[in-house]
Amino acid sequence: MRILGLDPSLSSTGWGIVDVEHNRLHYVADGFIKTDPKLPLPERLTLIHNTLAQVIETYKPDEAAIEQVFLNDNPQSTIKLGMARGVVILAPALYHIPVTEYEPNLVKKAVVGVGRAEKSQVEMMVKVLLPGCKPKNNDASDALALAITHNSFRKKVA
Amino acid sequence: MRILGLDPSLSSTGWGIVDVEHNRLHYVADGFIKTDPKLPLPERLTLIHNTLAQVIETYKPDEAAIEQVFLNDNPQSTIKLGMARGVVILAPALYHIPVTEYEPNLVKKAVVGVGRAEKSQVEMMVKVLLPGCKPKNNDASDALALAITHNSFRKKVA
Repeated sequence: MRILGLDPSLSSTGWGIVDVEHNRLHYVADGFIKTDPKLPLPERLTLIHNTLAQVIETYKPDEAAIEQVFLNDNPQSTIKLGMARGVVILAPALYHIPVTEYEPNLVKKAVVGVGRAEKSQVEMMVKVLLPGCKPKNNDASDALALAITHNSFRKKVA
Repeated sequence: MRILGLDPSLSSTGWGIVDVEHNRLHYVADGFIKTDPKLPLPERLTLIHNTLAQVIETYKPDEAAIEQVFLNDNPQSTIKLGMARGVVILAPALYHIPVTEYEPNLVKKAVVGVGRAEKSQVEMMVKVLLPGCKPKNNDASDALALAITHNSFRKKVA
């Protein structure tokens, strides 16, 4: 089975592809979609959508995983994250790929073993769990962590 | 010129189509996209996207207008509005239809004449400005108000 992990944000959305064979994880690909804050909003959302559509058509994942939203006190940031998140969830949905949401603590638990791990520990463990993988940036690494999490928990969620 | 007005929300997104000929407004169509809160989020976003894509393919608008976001203190509501808004802006953007944002006060000013008008006044004036139009609900009426606003202000914005 092939899993697409997604870490949405308007400025830089991370994505990562992981294969699972006989319960073993294999790194396939990762990347991030940077959008210029100076571009009009419709263009930024289009870039996120079109890139993810291309990723999905290239790698043909079977299932997708996304982090449950981190709400902060700045409504302006929350609405931006929301817009990116809506567009990011839509992409696999349009390809009839099921999307599952995971709480941030669950991601840390799946990847590091404890729910209160540091961000740097998550990044390190992503490299350990996916030999040969050098995530392109933090967002790509977080997306791979989501794909790993989906493999650990999908049977319980379904 | 044909204008698509959009009033996004996750539960009920309004849309309205208005033609402008020799600076006169003509009502074309309106509607709303209701999504069941019990459905999974990806299905709700897909329904919004697919319905808007159908509206755009049916009526082929030249330009689109959307209200600038109303931020509230509830981050959970803000993120939901954001997700709907992202998907709603994406639809015309994918068809290369320019999307302009308008502040709520500007909409009231364009439709009623004053920036602090009541919601009921906006609805009444939409019917006056678009003879023969009976908006299907408040969201559809708000979307038509956006289309009217775009006609009033687009020259100043562009």
